[in-house]
Amino acid sequence: MDHNISKHISGNFNQELENVRNHVLAMGGLVEQQLNSALDAVNDSNAELAKKVEHGDYKVNAMEVSIDEECTRIIAKRQPAASDLRLVVAIAKTIADLERIGDEARRIAKVALESTAKDQQGLLGNIDNMGRHVSQMLHDVLDAFARMDAEAAFRVHKEDAKVDREYEALTRQIMTYMMEDPRSIPKVMDLVWSVRSLERIGDRCQNIAEYVIYFVKGKDIRHTSQDDIERDIIGK
Amino acid sequence: MDHNISKHISGNFNQELENVRNHVLAMGGLVEQQLNSALDAVNDSNAELAKKVEHGDYKVNAMEVSIDEECTRIIAKRQPAASDLRLVVAIAKTIADLERIGDEARRIAKVALESTAKDQQGLLGNIDNMGRHVSQMLHDVLDAFARMDAEAAFRVHKEDAKVDREYEALTRQIMTYMMEDPRSIPKVMDLVWSVRSLERIGDRCQNIAEYVIYFVKGKDIRHTSQDDIERDIIGK
Repeated sequence: MDHNISKHISGNFNQELENVRNHVLAMGGLVEQQLNSALDAVNDSNAELAKKVEHGDYKVNAMEVSIDEECTRIIAKRQPAASDLRLVVAIAKTIADLERIGDEARRIAKVALESTAKDQQGLLGNIDNMGRHVSQMLHDVLDAFARMDAEAAFRVHKEDAKVDREYEALTRQIMTYMMEDPRSIPKVMDLVWSVRSLERIGDRCQNIAEYVIYFVKGKDIRHTSQDDIERDIIGK
Repeated sequence: MDHNISKHISGNFNQELENVRNHVLAMGGLVEQQLNSALDAVNDSNAELAKKVEHGDYKVNAMEVSIDEECTRIIAKRQPAASDLRLVVAIAKTIADLERIGDEARRIAKVALESTAKDQQGLLGNIDNMGRHVSQMLHDVLDAFARMDAEAAFRVHKEDAKVDREYEALTRQIMTYMMEDPRSIPKVMDLVWSVRSLERIGDRCQNIAEYVIYFVKGKDIRHTSQDDIERDIIGK
């Protein structure tokens, strides 16, 4: 592990790359915490916690801007090549997705603030299950990023198909709910957006998994089928 | 215009930057065409056109991967600094947003394929209006990118607030529709996703506007209020 990272002539450069990686992991940890708090806030109709999530999003945004500047500075000063350059590119893309996962967490927390969803306990429980699943994906992909482990990243990549199926099942359930009780529609629409947000977070975890594989294997696997990835890239 | 771009010692480097800019504009043109075709397909319930949009998305994806490689190659080979590096960074981010606008266009086109929305002519007309508005934003931000015009980019940035208001009005209209005719809910849900897609495309046009301003003014304006941008950055 990390064998691509720790072989620089310049110890300073090594330190800079290590720092920026650590900053990404700190940002990832914060985003994970934001997502879990947002899910807790919805589940417990906890408006105070929801406000905390809303406020915390500023910190996520500030971290993105600062890491982005760090990456640009490294490119300008160190002129990295090959795997170093791939690492900086992977980091720059990862933080963009993390920032947007943070935005989705803020959107989810808003539902608790509007506190209209309390009556839909059955739906809320299922949304919470999907939320914990997505949160686990985020945790696992950050772990794969920390260890730059392409196999672990690929497992997260495959997990997204399950999240998509949960999303479809939940959407159908919500529509049935709306049809049975049309007066509930305005309230339930908030839940529709939450479920959509969770599905998008799954997509973004899949993106981050792709950047890890791109860094480790040197291949851009976006828009490549999972069978082809498994055969041509992970298998080698 | 372009005064930051055409003053390189190396004519080859100039040519490379010019090429990658042209590729971004070609990609932008294709994405714009995809969005307009998707809107036409929904409006006319034209399944054939919708399939064309679905197929065309592969081309958008391929262009993103190829321009991304071009950017990485330029960084590795030319080791750009200052405004050249900002240009490459702005391009790398712009194409990521363009690719996702392409994805949203594909999602919108799907609604025409499922051809369940024909009965909702009133809603369809309003969605089409919002769609044309968003399409104009995309056109204008690509134009601002082509001329690297920060003022024009800022006009697009401000336009997004109007799109957000259209989005809220349409969502309310759709909910009323659902409550009046609950059996229509599964059909109308497709339209809900389309409206959400359009809102997201507006956000992405706003992102691209931010990259143009970042390139021209050298300042990262994400997470900055529009009043502050106007006073501190555009005004100077």
